[in-house]
Amino acid sequence: MGNVDPRPPESLMPTSIHDLSTPAVVIDADALDANLRTMADLHPGAALRPHVKAHKCTALAAAQRAVGHRGFTCATPREVLGMAAAGLGDDLLLANETVDRTRLAAMAALHRDGRARITVAVDSEATVDAAARAGIAEVLVDVDIGLPRCGIAAQEAGALADRARRQGLVVRGVMGYEGHLMAMDDPDEQAHRVAEAVERLLAAHADVGGDVVSSGGTGTHHLHRTRVADPGTPHVTEVQAGSYALMDSHYAAHGHGERFAPACHVIGTVVSVGRRHAVADVGLKAMGMDHGNPTTAAGAVWFLSDEHLTFAPSTPVSVGDRIAVVPAHIDPTMAMHEVAWVVRGDEVVDRWPIDLRGW
Amino acid sequence: MGNVDPRPPESLMPTSIHDLSTPAVVIDADALDANLRTMADLHPGAALRPHVKAHKCTALAAAQRAVGHRGFTCATPREVLGMAAAGLGDDLLLANETVDRTRLAAMAALHRDGRARITVAVDSEATVDAAARAGIAEVLVDVDIGLPRCGIAAQEAGALADRARRQGLVVRGVMGYEGHLMAMDDPDEQAHRVAEAVERLLAAHADVGGDVVSSGGTGTHHLHRTRVADPGTPHVTEVQAGSYALMDSHYAAHGHGERFAPACHVIGTVVSVGRRHAVADVGLKAMGMDHGNPTTAAGAVWFLSDEHLTFAPSTPVSVGDRIAVVPAHIDPTMAMHEVAWVVRGDEVVDRWPIDLRGW
Repeated sequence: MGNVDPRPPESLMPTSIHDLSTPAVVIDADALDANLRTMADLHPGAALRPHVKAHKCTALAAAQRAVGHRGFTCATPREVLGMAAAGLGDDLLLANETVDRTRLAAMAALHRDGRARITVAVDSEATVDAAARAGIAEVLVDVDIGLPRCGIAAQEAGALADRARRQGLVVRGVMGYEGHLMAMDDPDEQAHRVAEAVERLLAAHADVGGDVVSSGGTGTHHLHRTRVADPGTPHVTEVQAGSYALMDSHYAAHGHGERFAPACHVIGTVVSVGRRHAVADVGLKAMGMDHGNPTTAAGAVWFLSDEHLTFAPSTPVSVGDRIAVVPAHIDPTMAMHEVAWVVRGDEVVDRWPIDLRGW
Repeated sequence: MGNVDPRPPESLMPTSIHDLSTPAVVIDADALDANLRTMADLHPGAALRPHVKAHKCTALAAAQRAVGHRGFTCATPREVLGMAAAGLGDDLLLANETVDRTRLAAMAALHRDGRARITVAVDSEATVDAAARAGIAEVLVDVDIGLPRCGIAAQEAGALADRARRQGLVVRGVMGYEGHLMAMDDPDEQAHRVAEAVERLLAAHADVGGDVVSSGGTGTHHLHRTRVADPGTPHVTEVQAGSYALMDSHYAAHGHGERFAPACHVIGTVVSVGRRHAVADVGLKAMGMDHGNPTTAAGAVWFLSDEHLTFAPSTPVSVGDRIAVVPAHIDPTMAMHEVAWVVRGDEVVDRWPIDLRGW
């Protein structure tokens, strides 16, 4: 018995997508590049703090830094520690609460040693106290701006900041995530409600102080005016978008497909063909299912099992044919794979480990 | 629980569940043991070929071998290769079709070198030819018994077996998976339809030959009469159940909770508390979502985000409290985690790597 890695040798880098074992996550280099540049034009440099939870890939984060963003948003301590280890630790925000002593201490040590700048979100006395005890140096106050999840009530944010400062923590400002407003049918109502949410966040900021007002996501990135872009208007200082880089069918269906191209899909191989259906090897262990079934131009998706996608082909298929499957939700899909293959047309140009998985 | 992977250094091995970082997969040693013994009583020894896709854990498979099962079912080549590497390769069935040359060749090499016995499912000329070309020695003919997924039509199974034998493959028999009958409300109808499916499989078997008739799952295990248990009656030779070992809320809701106890949950930590809701750190990246939301005795689940579970607590909770979350679907949940902690009460008694993830 041993924990032997049973993988067949992958020492030979495939040069063609046709040689990839499946299911395989594929990133279109040109589409990704276009998405990164489009967003960097809208929210340049520090005005965007890309969220790495959407891809969990330090190589992709390095591409985001290459277009000017040096600060990053993380959802888990593992993402923070992995980004620091990859030399991408200029300004890392854990946009999430934790009271895990081991993980807080690991982040605090990196910051103390000058190997990364790490800021942690807090929204309660317990999370402030845990951060201070663990030696965390800098925090943001996470404010409830309408999503029933984390975040302190706006009117209580100032008192929490005071408590944090009394314990020696630097309070850099506020963050608030309007996740409930990411996908709305009526653009006017969305704009109105995002403006309300930002107002609430700015009211909290007035009590909290600090330089940072962090908010937003791919679904609302266009409704935020960042300081750099529009000086003088009500604003946040940075947007936390992540999904824009690779996109998915959910965001495409909500109107963001005009600005951002689908840059990621999963290649599957047809392994069985019936009279009315065919089966590819892209199952629900290879595809985030919380936003529903994925889509494929190869036909109508009937259902997914652990390792199978059953579909009605739009044109006849044969065993061995490849199909492209577009996830409904990119974030959990990436977290299920060990590696993403970067391609240009049929050529594989790079292999990016998805190296920020786990907690 | 039998032979397991070497323990990490003592300093890294938590001794109490209260010291586990979360989200953490926890296996109740006694409940697992009871489930394994219950199933081994019903389908002893070779009458059960446990499906490792449900747990992806060689240490758990070793526990299944310890109660008498030496053959295992796998869904991916990685599972096959990992089981062989762990010394559990007495009789491995890849109950799935593949035309991946690299992976077929890796399995063929293990078999040829005597390090494992590996049988591969085939359901088409293309999969037969791919297996033969890669040097695979033994196959089962996968028969369509009603689930619109893989499997050849029963009346064509004999001809496919002939083709396989002409290419030098040993045809060990047939398999068929009645996945569409796993969860039915009417037990009489379920029994009737499973009997029909088995009839179809046995008709194919009459044409195919060989010693193996493999079928079933946790949802139908009680409707299959295996040769060992009931000589002389219509039967399969082995049942492929997997989920019975750890269980989930889906199978519990379909009447199997009386026989098999919930043996697995995910521990989460409350990280934020609002007026009407609380948030734990068990998100949809830690929980298979295809069967819907997980459940928790701590309250009513509202929704899951990537790293959060928002719920309405049934009794007041505080930041830092632990909650137990039961997955709706165990298989993809296990595939999202790197390790499972084996516990007895609050004591952590072992650490099992989930070492068969991927493809």
